[in-house]
Amino acid sequence: MRKICVVVASRANYGRVKYVLKAIEAHPDLELQLVVSASVLLDRYGRAIRVIEQDGFKPLRKVYYVVEGENLEAQAKSTGLGIIELSGVFEDLKPDVVITVADRYETMATAIAASYLNIPLAHIQGGEITGNIDELVRHAITKLSHYHFPATEESKQRLLKMGEEPWRVVNSGCPAMDTLCHQNLDITPEFLAQIPEFVGHEFDFTKPYILVLQHPVTTTPEEGRRQIEETLYALVDRPEQKLVMWPNIDAGSDMVSRGIRVFRDKHQDCNYAYHKNFSPEIYNCVLNNAVCCVGNSSSFIREASFLGTPTVVVGDRQEGREHGHNVTFCDYDRNQIAQCVEKQIAHGRYEKQEIFGTGRAGEIIADYLANVELSIHKRMTY
Amino acid sequence: MRKICVVVASRANYGRVKYVLKAIEAHPDLELQLVVSASVLLDRYGRAIRVIEQDGFKPLRKVYYVVEGENLEAQAKSTGLGIIELSGVFEDLKPDVVITVADRYETMATAIAASYLNIPLAHIQGGEITGNIDELVRHAITKLSHYHFPATEESKQRLLKMGEEPWRVVNSGCPAMDTLCHQNLDITPEFLAQIPEFVGHEFDFTKPYILVLQHPVTTTPEEGRRQIEETLYALVDRPEQKLVMWPNIDAGSDMVSRGIRVFRDKHQDCNYAYHKNFSPEIYNCVLNNAVCCVGNSSSFIREASFLGTPTVVVGDRQEGREHGHNVTFCDYDRNQIAQCVEKQIAHGRYEKQEIFGTGRAGEIIADYLANVELSIHKRMTY
Amino acid sequence: MRKICVVVASRANYGRVKYVLKAIEAHPDLELQLVVSASVLLDRYGRAIRVIEQDGFKPLRKVYYVVEGENLEAQAKSTGLGIIELSGVFEDLKPDVVITVADRYETMATAIAASYLNIPLAHIQGGEITGNIDELVRHAITKLSHYHFPATEESKQRLLKMGEEPWRVVNSGCPAMDTLCHQNLDITPEFLAQIPEFVGHEFDFTKPYILVLQHPVTTTPEEGRRQIEETLYALVDRPEQKLVMWPNIDAGSDMVSRGIRVFRDKHQDCNYAYHKNFSPEIYNCVLNNAVCCVGNSSSFIREASFLGTPTVVVGDRQEGREHGHNVTFCDYDRNQIAQCVEKQIAHGRYEKQEIFGTGRAGEIIADYLANVELSIHKRMTY
Amino acid sequence: MRKICVVVASRANYGRVKYVLKAIEAHPDLELQLVVSASVLLDRYGRAIRVIEQDGFKPLRKVYYVVEGENLEAQAKSTGLGIIELSGVFEDLKPDVVITVADRYETMATAIAASYLNIPLAHIQGGEITGNIDELVRHAITKLSHYHFPATEESKQRLLKMGEEPWRVVNSGCPAMDTLCHQNLDITPEFLAQIPEFVGHEFDFTKPYILVLQHPVTTTPEEGRRQIEETLYALVDRPEQKLVMWPNIDAGSDMVSRGIRVFRDKHQDCNYAYHKNFSPEIYNCVLNNAVCCVGNSSSFIREASFLGTPTVVVGDRQEGREHGHNVTFCDYDRNQIAQCVEKQIAHGRYEKQEIFGTGRAGEIIADYLANVELSIHKRMTY
Repeated sequence: MRKICVVVASRANYGRVKYVLKAIEAHPDLELQLVVSASVLLDRYGRAIRVIEQDGFKPLRKVYYVVEGENLEAQAKSTGLGIIELSGVFEDLKPDVVITVADRYETMATAIAASYLNIPLAHIQGGEITGNIDELVRHAITKLSHYHFPATEESKQRLLKMGEEPWRVVNSGCPAMDTLCHQNLDITPEFLAQIPEFVGHEFDFTKPYILVLQHPVTTTPEEGRRQIEETLYALVDRPEQKLVMWPNIDAGSDMVSRGIRVFRDKHQDCNYAYHKNFSPEIYNCVLNNAVCCVGNSSSFIREASFLGTPTVVVGDRQEGREHGHNVTFCDYDRNQIAQCVEKQIAHGRYEKQEIFGTGRAGEIIADYLANVELSIHKRMTY
Repeated sequence: MRKICVVVASRANYGRVKYVLKAIEAHPDLELQLVVSASVLLDRYGRAIRVIEQDGFKPLRKVYYVVEGENLEAQAKSTGLGIIELSGVFEDLKPDVVITVADRYETMATAIAASYLNIPLAHIQGGEITGNIDELVRHAITKLSHYHFPATEESKQRLLKMGEEPWRVVNSGCPAMDTLCHQNLDITPEFLAQIPEFVGHEFDFTKPYILVLQHPVTTTPEEGRRQIEETLYALVDRPEQKLVMWPNIDAGSDMVSRGIRVFRDKHQDCNYAYHKNFSPEIYNCVLNNAVCCVGNSSSFIREASFLGTPTVVVGDRQEGREHGHNVTFCDYDRNQIAQCVEKQIAHGRYEKQEIFGTGRAGEIIADYLANVELSIHKRMTY
Repeated sequence: MRKICVVVASRANYGRVKYVLKAIEAHPDLELQLVVSASVLLDRYGRAIRVIEQDGFKPLRKVYYVVEGENLEAQAKSTGLGIIELSGVFEDLKPDVVITVADRYETMATAIAASYLNIPLAHIQGGEITGNIDELVRHAITKLSHYHFPATEESKQRLLKMGEEPWRVVNSGCPAMDTLCHQNLDITPEFLAQIPEFVGHEFDFTKPYILVLQHPVTTTPEEGRRQIEETLYALVDRPEQKLVMWPNIDAGSDMVSRGIRVFRDKHQDCNYAYHKNFSPEIYNCVLNNAVCCVGNSSSFIREASFLGTPTVVVGDRQEGREHGHNVTFCDYDRNQIAQCVEKQIAHGRYEKQEIFGTGRAGEIIADYLANVELSIHKRMTY
Repeated sequence: MRKICVVVASRANYGRVKYVLKAIEAHPDLELQLVVSASVLLDRYGRAIRVIEQDGFKPLRKVYYVVEGENLEAQAKSTGLGIIELSGVFEDLKPDVVITVADRYETMATAIAASYLNIPLAHIQGGEITGNIDELVRHAITKLSHYHFPATEESKQRLLKMGEEPWRVVNSGCPAMDTLCHQNLDITPEFLAQIPEFVGHEFDFTKPYILVLQHPVTTTPEEGRRQIEETLYALVDRPEQKLVMWPNIDAGSDMVSRGIRVFRDKHQDCNYAYHKNFSPEIYNCVLNNAVCCVGNSSSFIREASFLGTPTVVVGDRQEGREHGHNVTFCDYDRNQIAQCVEKQIAHGRYEKQEIFGTGRAGEIIADYLANVELSIHKRMTY
């Protein structure tokens, strides 16, 4: 039995790897060691740990290492503290492979702790191009990783160009697509029964709504408030309901949150509702049934292309990212945003695309890890 | 005035960047912010801080972050603590550029603290191929760095293949060569006057000697004692004097040190002498005048090729590394080592080569950093 | 010039030592080194740093070390990280004396960093009896401290009984009283102009209001929500306006906040208003003009006795504490609370008492520190 | 079954609590959770973990947290890192009681982690008077502790005067005396067979020898070298063999070690031998059979009074400490030391005294912890 340790460090992480966790648990030759950490444990970020435990997973360790501050210094210190904590955890759990997901700063803590301890490291979603510190982190993690599960063919090719050995690279597709294939994506009574009570405006999922999810951009954290305000004001005159979600924990998060709070207090009579956190399944349903998505969540690039939801991506957080025909890009400018939203809603739903996988990523990853040669002696191909 | 912060984290680091520090100090448009840290401050590793201060440099900060343990877990924790400490230091000093050197685990602490704080990061000695965790760390740091100063043309080409933008990559040569060009390399009375008192055997630099410097290998730290013993015993019957230097601080360092101590206690009558640390200049002189070098120090690859000193590289720590014709590789095997040493001493000195630079790296780096556009928005070229 | 370093770690800390800071700055033989840290820097806790800077103070260092989690483990880890950070800060600033205030967990970080570095440590508000982990921390800090500024005669006597040398103990009174003596405590147009905009209900300071401020109790952090609910519901039928303040950062803070948020969402039409943070002066004014205070803030014990504001202290957070005749104690029970409030409002304002000082603490402390012999060789008196 | 977690942080700690560990393991109602940490794990300090495991104990966790530097800053940072690490360990192990021993800086890490997590804390060897930072730390730990096991009646009385509740204080005697009662204290062939090989001079335990053990003093760490040199030179002309042990890990340790190393290199022909570490039993035997002990080890105060070994205590590290008639105090002055040694050797062995216990401390502590009410709500008695 190979012990596969997965470190889940944010609600987005979990949404993405849920079916990888299930596939590892289900595999006869693998044992899952689930570690939850960072914002997964924090009330302010919706305590995704509750959803994880409701889904039947039993985390072996809960690791607190977020240094509060929501500036870049605190983010760096969190990474440092994460390394200190996780190296102790890995030393204790002695996994055969550690899996890390994507590119946030906490991901680096997992990558360094594992690779410095000579534990083979597997990386999900490497090789993508975005356009901020996340991209540097993502490629640096690639260089520390021994196995790679890119989400697209283009990403796989990029990893090979970067000198990774071909046998260590498998295009598994994005495991977030797995979730989309395993659930009912319609607005059903069951769905409605699961929706947690709303804070703020009354909201009716059976009527048209626009979904807003906009994170801070770590290269310009101080701009967060202005950035979100452009988006919020762009939609003021739209007849559809607006469902605004709170941002993630990155540097600048406070600025975005403040922008939302001030807007909310000033516009209590408008048809805006606000929500902190959904389980991945509920979120997918919400995403699927929106008439349009606005913001910079990477789910608008990935899941939305698989679902065909019209999307307006604002700003440069997803710049240069591989994407489907459902996406329009625009600047932080309320007029431009309003026009793009107008056009996307007029167009209506797009045809589904499988750029980011077919929904079998979990199985592919589990099978590979059950059979691959475990070797930390990686060589560049040039 | 651009503020250039250099973090020196080991005696080897300092030996390498001394003339970069001098060139930055001398440049009219640059201000040097010197931070010394980790083993530079520790008695056990020769407190290189003394040499640094004798050379006239004034460190702005002394940062302690080595978690003792000399195993991989302690090394990971040191990196975490280093990030915590250095992010505070950078926040205080507000440099325009941070320079990090080479590939040891502490180097990663500098790289993460700087890049997470959106401070442009320059990396000296990227792009090289070696063959252990250092290599992964080196390439990961490349991916976090905004400017690159590889030491050879081959390394430069590798960085370009990895997708770095050409204008961000300059083959400066290795700054360690600068030192070789600025000093007298002969055994002079001045040299002899500076030699600190020896612990152990009497030693005469004007007579033939073999230099031994062998570090632990981080992928097999528990092998350190056996590895050094093969080398020490291989030389027992050689008529030349042996000068053995203590290893660096890597995981496994204790094992190597113990190997040396036990050997020393058993062979007090042999012509072996032991030394902890020399200033870079004295070390270069020692290296230049050895009849042969044995071990795995990277100085045997770099400086020795510039100087033409015959060298026997033991084990896989330098495996795959670009090198001159002065180097012979062999296994951890006393017979094999003895044969290689025999052959190298018979051959005598080699012709000098400039693979690792011409001795102007400091100036090249300082000029580039004084003039380059400061931008953290790096793009991959594919 | 003696350098006196004061570490301010919470908004309450600042409210308490503001006039100590002023007295040190004003003293010809002292130089103030202000360090701000922990929740003072955090948006969620009202970023008291803004108030500090508006008051004209220039912090030399801003130190982030709160590990998020709001449970006991995170609190312990914050203390650990605080020691790591502050020992570096003290090493840099080289103060002659470090001042720490009161008894929160962060205070211990200051105390350990200073005393372990052999820097004389002065402690404000030692010797008091309360009744939870704070009390253990307070007495432990006494044992690490070299100079003591208790706020009452009773506390001074307790410090002497604990074996502290008499010349090291001065009853300065509580410096929070200094603020009360230096400001206008009435509801004036100037006061009203400074009140930040309210989130929530409209509020009129010229009409009667009850002030609610209730912190989590660290020995029963999980009870926080129920505890605050008893208080909030106890006041539902009172005709006066209610002004509810958010709790501090202690373990359990999240539970209390959630209790407030849920209550707020359910009772939007009631006359409750909510506020995060006031400057000390505005807070004192708010406290002075309340018809009654309800909760467990230590300001209800101290400042309120000096001001004569009727107070109902709920639960055991202030148990056993020395207090004036303006205080009634009761359990976490909405009926009991309601009855106590009824009685206190019927009684009306109390006569002022000077149990906690006469308002000259800042000067007394500054004079003492300017003249006292600096010695870390403390002896117990038995 | 109550789970009793003991954190052993130094070789001295272990020597002291070995029979407490045995008594807990043997008790039908208690379960031992052994955690080893800090210098116990480090090669430089003799890796006492080997002895612990040879004695049959199985540590549940090995915690690395010594930040290297051997100055006060590094010592403070180690404490901070220790708190971070140990709070995670306690959260995992969920002990009913944590035991901490004595007064070194690491002890504080255990005390804070446990008490901040609301875990009842028991302290062995509180209430003693010494005379440096250790004393402040010891009394501060008393104030954080819920149960106290002082080693003498005088210490017990001091704890009561400090306000500790009488039912929480038990004079158990020092558990180091237990070891003395359970072993053969003579120089036997079995003893000689267990002596590890010596580094340095040949040594004959059956002939007269003087034992030297002198630690750095944390209030004057920079004096360490001069202090040890006075002692070493004081003994140069004595006819007896000298057995010099290396100092512990405190700030200044490097200075003392350097003093010893330089002395050793200069006086290779003298009858001095050097040793790093003995198991507690072997050490006791060595102590018992010395003609005189010289230095500042607390074992010279405790064990030596029980054994009756003549002792010369140098400097102020043990100043004011309760002691037997076997002890003479003197300054760091080679002439004075030489005279005291002369007198003590002339006097010969002293009668045994039971000031520090009768050898039943382990059982007394285990019984108490098995039966005492577990309560963290401690009250001062005044």
